[in-house]
Amino acid sequence: MNVALLGLGNVGRAVYDILEKKEADIFKNYEVNVKYVLVRNVKNKNINPNVLITDYNLILNDPTIDVVIEMMGASVSYDYMKKALLASKHVITANKEVIANHYVELQTIAMTNKVKLLFEASVGGGIPIVHTLLNSAPFNNIVKIEGILNGTTNFILTSMHKEKIDFLEALQLAQQKGFAEADPTADLEGLDMVRKIAILSMICYGSEIDLKDIYHYGIKNVDKEIIEVVDLLGYKLKFVASSSLNDNNISISVEPVALKNSDLLANVDYEYNLISYHGEGCATQMMYGKGAGPTTANSIVFDLGLVLSDYRQKFLPKLKLACTGNDKVISKYLIRFKNKIDDNIISKSLGNMAITKSLSGIELKNILPDIDFYARIID
Amino acid sequence: MNVALLGLGNVGRAVYDILEKKEADIFKNYEVNVKYVLVRNVKNKNINPNVLITDYNLILNDPTIDVVIEMMGASVSYDYMKKALLASKHVITANKEVIANHYVELQTIAMTNKVKLLFEASVGGGIPIVHTLLNSAPFNNIVKIEGILNGTTNFILTSMHKEKIDFLEALQLAQQKGFAEADPTADLEGLDMVRKIAILSMICYGSEIDLKDIYHYGIKNVDKEIIEVVDLLGYKLKFVASSSLNDNNISISVEPVALKNSDLLANVDYEYNLISYHGEGCATQMMYGKGAGPTTANSIVFDLGLVLSDYRQKFLPKLKLACTGNDKVISKYLIRFKNKIDDNIISKSLGNMAITKSLSGIELKNILPDIDFYARIID
Repeated sequence: MNVALLGLGNVGRAVYDILEKKEADIFKNYEVNVKYVLVRNVKNKNINPNVLITDYNLILNDPTIDVVIEMMGASVSYDYMKKALLASKHVITANKEVIANHYVELQTIAMTNKVKLLFEASVGGGIPIVHTLLNSAPFNNIVKIEGILNGTTNFILTSMHKEKIDFLEALQLAQQKGFAEADPTADLEGLDMVRKIAILSMICYGSEIDLKDIYHYGIKNVDKEIIEVVDLLGYKLKFVASSSLNDNNISISVEPVALKNSDLLANVDYEYNLISYHGEGCATQMMYGKGAGPTTANSIVFDLGLVLSDYRQKFLPKLKLACTGNDKVISKYLIRFKNKIDDNIISKSLGNMAITKSLSGIELKNILPDIDFYARIID
Repeated sequence: MNVALLGLGNVGRAVYDILEKKEADIFKNYEVNVKYVLVRNVKNKNINPNVLITDYNLILNDPTIDVVIEMMGASVSYDYMKKALLASKHVITANKEVIANHYVELQTIAMTNKVKLLFEASVGGGIPIVHTLLNSAPFNNIVKIEGILNGTTNFILTSMHKEKIDFLEALQLAQQKGFAEADPTADLEGLDMVRKIAILSMICYGSEIDLKDIYHYGIKNVDKEIIEVVDLLGYKLKFVASSSLNDNNISISVEPVALKNSDLLANVDYEYNLISYHGEGCATQMMYGKGAGPTTANSIVFDLGLVLSDYRQKFLPKLKLACTGNDKVISKYLIRFKNKIDDNIISKSLGNMAITKSLSGIELKNILPDIDFYARIID
């Protein structure tokens, strides 16, 4: 199977590396060959120079190219993807802007040409939420979606709460860590989440959605004073996308939200994302994972796996590794005595209960006859 | 497509209802016909009597049956599933015991006969964790899995913490709500989680696993005293399955764990499950949802959807519903003034900030020119 990559930015390079290493199990049954990497300028790219090209027509006119992976996020992306589908090539993309705005048109072309249009990487970084909802939505009557869908802004707000730093300092930190774009406007205004929640809402409700119908209010005015008041009130400030379906009316907003500390969403920190959805059939379900950074490349590879094969069918354990229970686990334990046990293993006594010093699984088993309960302590 | 259901217990009946109603989108493109329902006794079953049978050979010998859905959880389940696969019928099962013990043998038969063996419902109730890991594991190098995988015991421990009730009272409550089996031994001893974590570990590590190599310690001795001490120490008691891969050595245990209140896992309550996994490629990801009760039927239907079709290809929004942003959302807001605003909408003043009374989205928009920040409050 021949693949063409469009773009060699952070995501493009990470995907190239995964495909070139060929370490992953999915490449053991299939030959995946990166035949072209489309770039603006072939100089100083530090990859195999024979695959570097600047003319997209070479890809379009090459009948041996099966899959085009779009990772440019450029103004030409839409046009390139459309042309690839019209040329009966599968398209995998990370481009939420194009999918949010042109999904129906592009998917119609894909179906007409009997190829796949896959966009796992467009929402939730490395979390396979798109595939999950595409599979689940058709029989779950999903009526509500809520989530932290932007790693950059969640990183900023978490840093302001936890490290008590300024907005600008937190933004710079996010940029240093490679989460935030040089121009973070789309993230801070909520436009990035508008596109993502639109994509998830289309999947769940089966309705087209105009991005201009989605309300959004940004976080660029958040400062130390606001964070202090939010803390004082026992809340955490999060930037949240919410979508609901009621009587054929869709309501979608992207806005700052003050959440109780005990709310699961309030405890999703830094670059992590969480998507929660609720349906008649599935009740409330959630997916959690990194929403920014290198895991995005994994969503591209995930989609490539879907083009290649049906894993469920192919999966068969090939190894027989040693399995040693908890023998090597080292931990402290909360225990309750039945009989007297050696004082040397106790670090804190609590009446007829105690906290042990660090024990291995084997040491734990030695005292099992003398206790009637234990819990492993995770700090 | 003709389907045979084996068993008409809670899950069997829920699946029958979903398939008979034919309301779900997945049944719009495909004819799904429940041709047989295998039961021990055809009396008083309150479904179409023409489909009720007691002789499994009718199913095996009927070449028009494409899919056998096993939901008996009986001693004959393994034998029935094996025979169905040998007869080249797809098998969907909720039976974690059979999958945990006989996966390799059954999958080998399935592959030889070019049919699917699907078992989404065997782990995590309605959460599509099996499909997600089957798709993700091949390129993510997963080395750690941790989770609350049993709704019954999590319901018991949560009730003991929150409602300060006895173990026995909590168990009875779980039984009344239909989560706990009449004989809850397999849940309380951890055997149910042993099977589930074995299945997930096989998928993630690609290794066969003997159930007898998995360490487990139950929760039947938990009482009010233990819960009080755990509370006092700032922890929550959870019954957790943990699995890790280190240098070709697998370590798996199922045991009570004391978790800090701020831990995400500590906040998974009642019948909910959470599965967390960590890999080189995907970092830490989690899936959350109900682990007991009627959502399990949805996992069966999920698998049936995988047999029927590839949704990613077929998905196309067919509606154009009204989308009204946040206009109809009613909420309190934390705001910061730029200009003086109407005192009537304030419920609590906080210097140059305030908490508003309940406002609609339209009322919020009216005051936007006079504030420089707001956060919607979720209590």
